[in-house]
Amino acid sequence: MEANANGSIGGVKGPTNPMASALLTDLYQFTMAYAYWKAGKHQERAVFDLYFRKNPFGGEYTVFGGLDECIRFIANFRLKEDELSYLRSVLPSTCEEGFFSYLRGINCSDVEVYAVPEGSAVFPKMPLLRVEGPVAVVQLLETPFVNLVNYASLVATNAARHRFVAGKSKILLEFGLRRAQGPDGGISASKYCYIGGFDATSNVAAGRLFGIPLRGTHSHAFISSYMSLDEIVDKRLRSHDGSFTCSDFVALAQNWLLKLRRATSLQGMFSETNQSELAAFISYALAFPSNFLALVDTYDVVRSGIPNYCAAALALNDLGYKATGIRLDSGDLAYLSIEARKFFRAIEKEFGVKDFGNTMITASNDLNEETLDALNKQGHEVDAYGIGTNLVTCYSQAALGCVFKLVEINNQPRIKLSEDVSKVSIPCKKRCYRLYGREGYPLVDIMTGENEPPPKVAQRILCRHPFSESKRAYVVPQHVEELLKCYWSGNSGKSREELPPLTKIRERCIGQLSQMRPDHMRRLNPTPYKVSVSAKLYDFIHFLWLNEAPVGELQ
Amino acid sequence: MEANANGSIGGVKGPTNPMASALLTDLYQFTMAYAYWKAGKHQERAVFDLYFRKNPFGGEYTVFGGLDECIRFIANFRLKEDELSYLRSVLPSTCEEGFFSYLRGINCSDVEVYAVPEGSAVFPKMPLLRVEGPVAVVQLLETPFVNLVNYASLVATNAARHRFVAGKSKILLEFGLRRAQGPDGGISASKYCYIGGFDATSNVAAGRLFGIPLRGTHSHAFISSYMSLDEIVDKRLRSHDGSFTCSDFVALAQNWLLKLRRATSLQGMFSETNQSELAAFISYALAFPSNFLALVDTYDVVRSGIPNYCAAALALNDLGYKATGIRLDSGDLAYLSIEARKFFRAIEKEFGVKDFGNTMITASNDLNEETLDALNKQGHEVDAYGIGTNLVTCYSQAALGCVFKLVEINNQPRIKLSEDVSKVSIPCKKRCYRLYGREGYPLVDIMTGENEPPPKVAQRILCRHPFSESKRAYVVPQHVEELLKCYWSGNSGKSREELPPLTKIRERCIGQLSQMRPDHMRRLNPTPYKVSVSAKLYDFIHFLWLNEAPVGELQ
Repeated sequence: MEANANGSIGGVKGPTNPMASALLTDLYQFTMAYAYWKAGKHQERAVFDLYFRKNPFGGEYTVFGGLDECIRFIANFRLKEDELSYLRSVLPSTCEEGFFSYLRGINCSDVEVYAVPEGSAVFPKMPLLRVEGPVAVVQLLETPFVNLVNYASLVATNAARHRFVAGKSKILLEFGLRRAQGPDGGISASKYCYIGGFDATSNVAAGRLFGIPLRGTHSHAFISSYMSLDEIVDKRLRSHDGSFTCSDFVALAQNWLLKLRRATSLQGMFSETNQSELAAFISYALAFPSNFLALVDTYDVVRSGIPNYCAAALALNDLGYKATGIRLDSGDLAYLSIEARKFFRAIEKEFGVKDFGNTMITASNDLNEETLDALNKQGHEVDAYGIGTNLVTCYSQAALGCVFKLVEINNQPRIKLSEDVSKVSIPCKKRCYRLYGREGYPLVDIMTGENEPPPKVAQRILCRHPFSESKRAYVVPQHVEELLKCYWSGNSGKSREELPPLTKIRERCIGQLSQMRPDHMRRLNPTPYKVSVSAKLYDFIHFLWLNEAPVGELQ
Repeated sequence: MEANANGSIGGVKGPTNPMASALLTDLYQFTMAYAYWKAGKHQERAVFDLYFRKNPFGGEYTVFGGLDECIRFIANFRLKEDELSYLRSVLPSTCEEGFFSYLRGINCSDVEVYAVPEGSAVFPKMPLLRVEGPVAVVQLLETPFVNLVNYASLVATNAARHRFVAGKSKILLEFGLRRAQGPDGGISASKYCYIGGFDATSNVAAGRLFGIPLRGTHSHAFISSYMSLDEIVDKRLRSHDGSFTCSDFVALAQNWLLKLRRATSLQGMFSETNQSELAAFISYALAFPSNFLALVDTYDVVRSGIPNYCAAALALNDLGYKATGIRLDSGDLAYLSIEARKFFRAIEKEFGVKDFGNTMITASNDLNEETLDALNKQGHEVDAYGIGTNLVTCYSQAALGCVFKLVEINNQPRIKLSEDVSKVSIPCKKRCYRLYGREGYPLVDIMTGENEPPPKVAQRILCRHPFSESKRAYVVPQHVEELLKCYWSGNSGKSREELPPLTKIRERCIGQLSQMRPDHMRRLNPTPYKVSVSAKLYDFIHFLWLNEAPVGELQ
């Protein structure tokens, strides 16, 4: 593949956020690049693994997101003249000019990226990406790659967890833009929540960028912008089939309100409703007769919002339109949804309005996994959830700790030690497999050295915990899946996977999670999914470890 | 002011993130705009307040950030043809074409924005921005404004809190890019942490965009990329003054390591150090002889990292260079920093190397307010902190709950009620003041109706809690500061404040926080700063409240 005029290789579009430039990295990647260059080491071939150490949100699974953006990033990676000038101005003046000439020429044509397909269920310690290439170049990719994967995977996982609690039948809407961590915190949240199993977003920019379905109606401000019914000047509404025009839709709705107040089955449910709210609802119904959904909690849900909604919805029904439903944005959502459902069913029965009992009820207001779970336990009548702050900021755990570790350089395996065993890296360029059992569930992931023979179906293989001597198990896989596929081959000529469209990534995520054994997925005390290394790799890790660690002296 | 060819009014640059377009909003802002337009209400003049209800992080203050981006946003706010086409495709097909013609023509020339200066200390319920203009247009601004202010203010506050605990004398470095919520989560974090009192960032893109000082050296990968001293081919280093060249800097450093091992004051501190680490340090010192800072915890801080650093640093010293220091990225930072300091001081004394005892010690590794506080209590020798994840994701509270509420339309005050008193909005277009006491501290913020006479110096004024009848106090201000200033006047001809450069915003933040009474600032049980309304506004709020709330019926 040749770089085109824009510096893009292989015709891959740039990252969604144009701010994701080659300078979107830590300064130390450039100082290291200089030191590598100065020592003549910059072209040494290095292999780095990108992985995380712990699943987020107290769970035992993670959804991998961000691959598409990483590939777009490297396809377009190069340093422009103005960026080079800036670097020259911030690096020590002792840096030699030859280094900047070197930087001017770099791109990612010598880099290869192997990755788990985006949307996959992934687990701690297993590489999500393996990046190979000249050490100085791959080092520059560390920060943007970790940045692009961390939040993407975190928020996709959060969305999947919300979907799991809400259940498959509910509609899930992402409403987080205003509370997200900046503009692309919002835009990325919409993208990755959709991958994680949400149905739609309120974010127009994200809808446009990614083709995600959009949803939204009105806010409290719309309701309180109305003072009285007198504000509605044009009261006409044509019937749905165009056969006639109602000359006073306001009177029609008012008349319905009167009928509701007198209805036997609704006796005592409400008396006077708020008239500015009624005006806002009628006005909104006139604007969107086929898509009438009303926010009913500005004044009082049961005594004002619901009856006002029903009056407008029934007036629409007279003209052949079917109203959509209500949104509850405060109060006791379980109780209010049940009351609303009773109201809608009573109307269906008393006035014979077919399907009115199934009017859609959307709930919003600071929802999260816990509140969804609590609603399920209490019983409720909510059909759709609008979820914002807790979802998009990943409030219960705002960061995933992805790291990018050198595992090999110049064909020499490297290990990073730590007093904390969980922080010791797994050395070597590796192959990664998922082994499936008889019931079709994944049983264990296993890493092997690059040149070991792959695990075979129906052949027993020993899977070892990478660090704990006593933890090991024999597995006879019924199906073996190689996890890392080539997504970027630079100009090596190797074939590479296509980047799938968002809908395919979403399908993969939903499919992968539905095939996990249920005990890994449950919210309370889920069973950890096992991640292992081959016996050969285990031995090598521990040989290298002993080799590198200093021998202590007790004094 | 006229709109120029790009649609910018008054020559204000666009938002930092080009993704902050007019579509970066919730769909319901457009559906409401249509309903307003359809009802002929779209030009009604509305006043919205942007404020938050609770200070973050369990504290009693917030730093206001994001104003500059909001003004850039509205100066460049307009809908392009492709954006209009997209909107047409997602709004119901019943929407009339006239609406899109209307949208095509809108910009923010009819909008006025009054705001507290960016970098100010701000408090719950007080408007940070007051936005006035045609209701349909201002409604479209809600989501982007809240988005641009929420995270900016949250992370600036988080940075200020870290600065408060660390103390004025420490160097604070923001290292969060890789763990931030997406690319501009990282870039915004760098910007607003600098405002909040940080000294530098590792984020090169942010350094370039905002002129923030950059810092960074190398990672563990750099250390582990070296296998042995043989990898260093060019061993020469010219002395700092250029007067001679050392032909074997490796031997010089090795010689120093030997001297250190034999030094009386360092007896038994270490024996064999890791040679690949020594190779990496020497190589880095050769690349950056004037900026040598080494990460010393790859193998073992006390037994390998520190002596290896000192060997390279003392070799540099022989050539007239002054090494910078070390970074600790794991383990017991208090203990390790104290051990490092002892080592450095012993060397200064035994070898007479001036100032070596003051070698800079930087600490990183999952630092947050609590760990800084714990370090202070234990005693430590850290000079600089590198803080990432907890700082930039605002891990302890990942969202600020800014809201945007309609307070007036067509000169009619509006209120939004709620079962939860803290969610009731304060109606009316208001003026806001900060009243200062005799000791120079701010005493209370007060909101008044727009046409009330302003509070006067030395004149007693009654300050009332907006919702609690019994909470009120007389104040005799020694100084009165009007808080909301005009930052955007559209084409009204009113004069407006200049947008200050980042350094001025940073100075304002540091100045404002240093003038707060200390009990509002302390970490444990801080005293709430009082926010009040005038007696007249209090009466009006409660009149309106009774007017709008439905009378309950106990059954």
